[in-house]
Order: sequence, then C-alpha cells, then structure tokens
Amino acid sequence: MTIARTPAPIDALLAQLRAEIVGPMLTAPSALEPYRRDRAADPNAGTPLAVVRAQSVADVQTVLRFASEHTIAVIPRGAGSGLSGGSSAVDGAIILSTEDMRGIAVDPITMTVTAGPGVMNAELKAAAAEHGLWYPPDPASFEFCSIGGNVATNAGGLCCVKYGVTRDYVLGMTVVLADGSVVELGGRLIKDVAGLPLMQLFIGSEGTLGVIVSVTLRLRAAPPPSSTVLVTFDDIDAAGAAVLALARTGRLSMLELMDRTTVECVERLHAGGLDTTAAATLIVQSDEPGEAGQAALAAAAEICSAGGCVSVRQAASVEEGERWTTLRRVAIPSVEAAAGSLLLGDVGVPLPSLGALMAGIESISRESGVPIALIAHAGDGNTHPLVMRDTTSAEAIARADAAYGRVMDLAIALDGTITGEHGVGRLKQPWLAANVGDDVVRLNEAVKAALDPQRILNPGAAF
Amino acid sequence: MTIARTPAPIDALLAQLRAEIVGPMLTAPSALEPYRRDRAADPNAGTPLAVVRAQSVADVQTVLRFASEHTIAVIPRGAGSGLSGGSSAVDGAIILSTEDMRGIAVDPITMTVTAGPGVMNAELKAAAAEHGLWYPPDPASFEFCSIGGNVATNAGGLCCVKYGVTRDYVLGMTVVLADGSVVELGGRLIKDVAGLPLMQLFIGSEGTLGVIVSVTLRLRAAPPPSSTVLVTFDDIDAAGAAVLALARTGRLSMLELMDRTTVECVERLHAGGLDTTAAATLIVQSDEPGEAGQAALAAAAEICSAGGCVSVRQAASVEEGERWTTLRRVAIPSVEAAAGSLLLGDVGVPLPSLGALMAGIESISRESGVPIALIAHAGDGNTHPLVMRDTTSAEAIARADAAYGRVMDLAIALDGTITGEHGVGRLKQPWLAANVGDDVVRLNEAVKAALDPQRILNPGAAF
Repeated sequence: MTIARTPAPIDALLAQLRAEIVGPMLTAPSALEPYRRDRAADPNAGTPLAVVRAQSVADVQTVLRFASEHTIAVIPRGAGSGLSGGSSAVDGAIILSTEDMRGIAVDPITMTVTAGPGVMNAELKAAAAEHGLWYPPDPASFEFCSIGGNVATNAGGLCCVKYGVTRDYVLGMTVVLADGSVVELGGRLIKDVAGLPLMQLFIGSEGTLGVIVSVTLRLRAAPPPSSTVLVTFDDIDAAGAAVLALARTGRLSMLELMDRTTVECVERLHAGGLDTTAAATLIVQSDEPGEAGQAALAAAAEICSAGGCVSVRQAASVEEGERWTTLRRVAIPSVEAAAGSLLLGDVGVPLPSLGALMAGIESISRESGVPIALIAHAGDGNTHPLVMRDTTSAEAIARADAAYGRVMDLAIALDGTITGEHGVGRLKQPWLAANVGDDVVRLNEAVKAALDPQRILNPGAAF
Repeated sequence: MTIARTPAPIDALLAQLRAEIVGPMLTAPSALEPYRRDRAADPNAGTPLAVVRAQSVADVQTVLRFASEHTIAVIPRGAGSGLSGGSSAVDGAIILSTEDMRGIAVDPITMTVTAGPGVMNAELKAAAAEHGLWYPPDPASFEFCSIGGNVATNAGGLCCVKYGVTRDYVLGMTVVLADGSVVELGGRLIKDVAGLPLMQLFIGSEGTLGVIVSVTLRLRAAPPPSSTVLVTFDDIDAAGAAVLALARTGRLSMLELMDRTTVECVERLHAGGLDTTAAATLIVQSDEPGEAGQAALAAAAEICSAGGCVSVRQAASVEEGERWTTLRRVAIPSVEAAAGSLLLGDVGVPLPSLGALMAGIESISRESGVPIALIAHAGDGNTHPLVMRDTTSAEAIARADAAYGRVMDLAIALDGTITGEHGVGRLKQPWLAANVGDDVVRLNEAVKAALDPQRILNPGAAF
C-alpha cells in the first residue's frame, strides 16, 4: 500500500535533509532514473523520492536518522551491479548510494585493507597488488561491482572453489544501523569470539539490517601463475559427473563450466576458438606452484578422459589460460547481447546433484520453448542459468518468467538453494519460503524486527 | 535474583518432565556435582535442579518446551571441556547435556560429515580418516571436546593459521530454539545466500540462542605430512617480531609459541628435550608437499636467524615434528600440574602487537608477583596466558584474579579481544562491554531478545 501524501510536506522535509548532508541529493526525475534499477532490471522497480550520494559516515547517519524519524524507506545501493533486484527502488524511498565513499588503505604489515563501500572490487585488487598482495574474491563483475555490495551479498566468483567467498575475508566493519547509530564490529584480529558473531550477520544481509560504511578485509600473498586446461564433453551428464570427481581432488583453483548455448553466444562476439559443438566446456585451473600444478592438471585431465570427455587442451601459456578465463567472464554480457533481455538464475545444489540440475534445466528449456544458456561455478555446485526473455509479447514474457521460476523450483527439489552468491533481492523473494521453510523465514523476520523495527531498510528485499 | 519456590511443585514438574523424555534425568546431588562446572572450574557455579542427558532431538525439544512453559533456565552442555565457564551451572537451572547424541555419518562423495553434538572432535577426525578425509579444526583438547561445543564456541586450535576455525567448516545445522521448535539451516551446499545468514549467528553463540542438535561439516583431503622446525629466542620481543614476519609468508601450517615458564613445566613432566633456558620456543610447520615444504621451512629459518634467534632445529622425521607438537598440546595440563589452579586467558591482538602483548603480560606477572605462563597460537595473534593461582590465601587468590583481569585490560588497550577461541563464558563476561563497546552489547541483547525472549538459554553466559 502506498500512502498518499501531499507534495508540500515531503518537499519541505527533503529540503531539510539536503541542508544537513554534505553529499548531493538528486530529485529530478531524469537524475533518479539511473538509480531505479540494478542490473536485474526489475520490471516492478518503483520511483524514489530522492537519491543521496553519501560522502561520509555522517551523511549515512543523517539519512538514516531522518528516515527513522519520518518512517521513510531507505534502499542502500553500491555500484548497482546486483543481479537480483536487491537495490531496486521502492516508491517513496530514499536511495542511499555509497558510490562516493571510496577511501582505501592497504596495511601491508597485517596484510589487510580497509575500504569504503564504494570502492570497486577491481580497485581493491589493484591496491593490494601494489604491495604484492591479493584480494581473492572475484565476481565476474569485479570491474564494476563495489566492495560494499560484495559484502552485503556475500559475493562469490570464480576463485571460490579454492579460496572461498567474501565472508572468508571480512575481519571488521563499521555499520550504520537503522536508527543512525554506528557500531564497529571485529577489527584486524584473525580470531575473535567476543560476544555474538554480529559481524557475520551483516555479511549477506542485502542491506536489510544496516548500511556497511567501511570494511576491513584480509589479503593474501599473490598466488603463483595458474596452469589451465580446457575440456569438452558431448554429454552434460558426463560433464556433471566429472566435475564432482574433479572437485574431490581439492587441488583446483578454478572449475568453471559453460554449456553449448553460452559458448555459441561468446564465440559470436569474441571468436575465442572455443568449440561451439560441445555440450559442455570446462575451464580447469591449478595455481599450485611448478610441478605440483602440472601434476594436479594431469590428474584432472585423466579424470575427464576416464569420464568420457571429447577433448582436453592444455594452455600453452599463462596468458592463453587467462584468455580462456576472460571468455568465461564475458559470458553473461555475450548471452545478453544475443537475447536482448535475460533473467539471471543463481541456483546451487550439492555437487552430486549438479548433473541432475543441468539436465533438469535443459528439460525446462525444451518443454517451455524458452532458451536457457548455462554457466556454472561448477566446482561449487553453483550455476547461473541465463533465461533468455523474448520481450516481443506478453505471452513470451510470461513463459520466460515461468521458466525462471521452474528452475528455482527444481533447485529446491534437489535440496539446493535459489541463490548461491547473488542474493535473494526482490526477484527471488517469492521462492524464499519454499527454499528455507516458513519457520526460517519467521526467524529472519525476528532478527529483522530486532535490528530495524520500523522496517525502513530495503523493504521487500531478501526475505 | 533467585525466586524462592516450595520444593513440592518443582519436584512434581520434574517428575512430569522425566516422564516425557527418553534420556536419563539426574537429580541426586552427587550426580549433579560433575555437571556444575566445566574445565574453567568457575568458583561461582550454582546448583542445577537436574541434568537431562538428551538422547534425541525430541528430548531437546521436550526440555526446551518445558523450560519455556515454566521459565526455567537451561544450560546447554557438550563435553564440559570449556575453559570460560560457558556451561557453569546456574541455581535452579536444567543442565541439558548432549553428550549422548553421538550419531556420525561421513559422506565421502560430498566430503562432508553430519554429526550429533556429543561426538568428540577426535572421533570426527577418525571417522573422516577412514575415508582418507580430514577435519582440520584441532583445539588442544580435541580428544575430549565435543563438536557441538566446538561449533557453539567457534573453536580454533593449532591448524588455524592455515586452515581456519570451526566456522570455516560448517555447512549446515539443526537447531532447537528456546521455544522447542526446530529449524534446519544450510545443508550440504558450498555456496548459499538465501535469506539472512542465520546459521552464522549460531556459530560461536555459546548456547545463548539455541541448542545445536546436529551439524554438517565440510571435510578436506588429508594433507601431506608436515615438516617441522623448532626455533628458540632469548628475547620475547624478537620472537614476536619473527612471528609477524613468519605469518606474512602465508606458507606455514602451524606457528606455535611457548614461553620459558611453559617449557619448564612441560619438561618437568614430559622430558621432551626442549630448551628450558629459552625465553620463547616456536614450533613452525609446513605441510606443502615435498620440496615446497622444505623451501617454506628454509625461508622460515632464515627469517628467524635474521631476527636474532638462538637456535633452529629441523625435525629429523615427521614423527619428531609430531612429538614436538604433542609437547605443545600438553602445555596446559603441564602448567596446571605445576600450579594447582589456573586461570586460562585467551587474549588476542593484531599480529604487530603480539610482542607488546607478551611483554605487557610479563610486566603484569612481575608487578603482581603472580606467575603467568604463556602459550600462543602465535600466527593468529592468539595467546593463552596461564595465570597460576595460588589458592593458599584469599589475598593470593585476589592477586591472581586481578592479574587475569589486567591481561584482558591490556588486550583491549591493544585493539585486541578478550577471547580468540574459547568464548566469553561467565568468567570473561565482566570485560565484554569494555572490549566491544556498550552499543555492541546492546545489539547482542537485541538479537538475544528476538530469539530467546524469556532469556532461558544459558543466562549469564557470553554477554
């Protein structure tokens, strides 16, 4: 329900807010438009009252105090690269953008970095690299996603199979709560169990419990260069079985999969020499040093051969391996270019069910007549079905939407998850209860009520 | 405040509970006595009404429903190996012991294990090893601590410097909430961000939010055998500086420290050939395979030599390295044997402050006349000062207690933590607010109120 308001009081209130903050406040419709949606292009996105580009922790506090006082919804927003509509605008809300909070300080001694939420993942990696250090988490969007958003969604990426997800790197954070108060959680400590693990609660909370205004992350020594093999299968089931066996070696630093439709789209735009006839293409890497890496890849090649693969190609150089990885990274935009409009899935299953999930998605595509390309962080059992959305008719749109839902139903039936790394956002919200259970949704609500009793933070997202 | 009750109604209520559960219920004073304290020997431990040894999830549910209905406190208890009084009895409470919930099922395909909370850490390791798999977290107490307690405290150990803490291995759990309802969180998924990360909230919650009745943990392939060097320093500052440099290599699988007092106590009982004149002894391991491991240890030896160490001894065999590690594992009981009574600290600091922490603890010991032995998971900046408690006079006890408190004050002053891996329990509770801030304590309370509004779960522990 939208409560009707007369424009005058809101304008007066917003003028008051504008006077209290340092950052710019945008209210012109043309200025608001780019902030209404993230990359999920949520068709139900509303129109916000205003966008505040916070310049400081104080700005964030001011906005949240104001919003609490007047019971106005606040949508925290990083770089707007989200794929689940987690930062879609809601009618009458304030969009609180952290894009300008870009401080970054590497501490090479403790091998940590403290960054504002608006720092891009790629910038953080680059700042670490200046000290010979490495920040592993690498969403495919690393060049245009912010670290605040990464923490808010517990983002994953391609390296997770060996190096874990964003959560595994967070040591400390500063959070502004719904009432505008600030708390510091964690620090630069490697082990710390003092009190409830509240910091963990904010990692992956999708902006529903507080606004992360600073984060301290652990860095690692840069790994040795990777060795890579490219493997093709003419059968998706065989590829799934091989992935399970490969993951069990515990020695791979990347284990990615693309299906035929994806490879066709990638080759159309990038002509990278991938085999467009293969049912599944795996990119397999090891970053163990020297001979150990070669041995790990030889073992991987043997597993794939025994599993009935069509071809195994060893990269001639680190650069060739990197080129193949780049082809994987451009998969989503490549499929998007072919499809016009995409619905991006993020379903995951326990690894033994990966083959069943992929086969089931093929069936859904065939039965519905909706093309679905598939890429996967296969070693984690985490897939991204890319549902191609023909927007030329309402009927075609409805069919695509139904296929997207059926993919989530399938993941749930396989003891899986509707979202492995992108977040529930608004687009997957209707499937959450079926996924985690009504009792767990109630527990989500209880925690939400404790931290944001007025429910002003990102209403409608996540749960 | 203890509310006076007439004995008759309580006895009648307990009889009713006894009829509803499968597990034994103990009420005789002699039977209750062993359940009043954990290894922290909390001097303020109360006397429980009863001990219930739950045999099943249903028993746990029955106890919690009963306790909710009659507003009776429940102290969840695993193996009673806690070092912070987290399972000390409270007057009038029910001790809910999970020691008999010992189901264990390894799934070698997904490389996971699902275990009841009463399974010992060592049993879990052994069950994994039968499949060539490995469960890394290794508290020094691994032979007599339970996995339920490990998860409830987010326990650490010696391998954390490379392999992380308990949290890093938890994929799923079943929890009975304060009202007796059951929730399933997570599963066998490697990546899962559906809804708030509630599972994370229970890891390290010290029995204050729910009772963990089953847990699914990730296993790894067993690592190669370790190579070990033993390094001595005649200066604790130099040892601290060397630890920082060693940790920064990122290549070590163990980095433990014992001070002179500890080594003296260990040698007295175990005669392991350690140098009792060294101010600090480091045990440094690498489990990188073959030559890589040798190279990692050679680099470590060079760092220590450049840092002014007195001696570096390379273990002649894997067994000799394991023997040295065992000497470290028996350090706490060895110091306990010398001291009679111990107060066990668990303070941690950012690594650059490790030297300052150790020097400060020496000063506290000197100034107070209270001997303090020190062991450390040095690579994590996590130390265990072992405050020797002369119990022959009230004055001596007060001096030891004051020294224990001053060590925590020091850690707080160094931006550290009062507990790195043992939990706050009851013994460190008075320092929590100074450590994390009143605002964070309030946030703890808000979450507690959301999950356990009657505050029946482990009152007085953690926060």
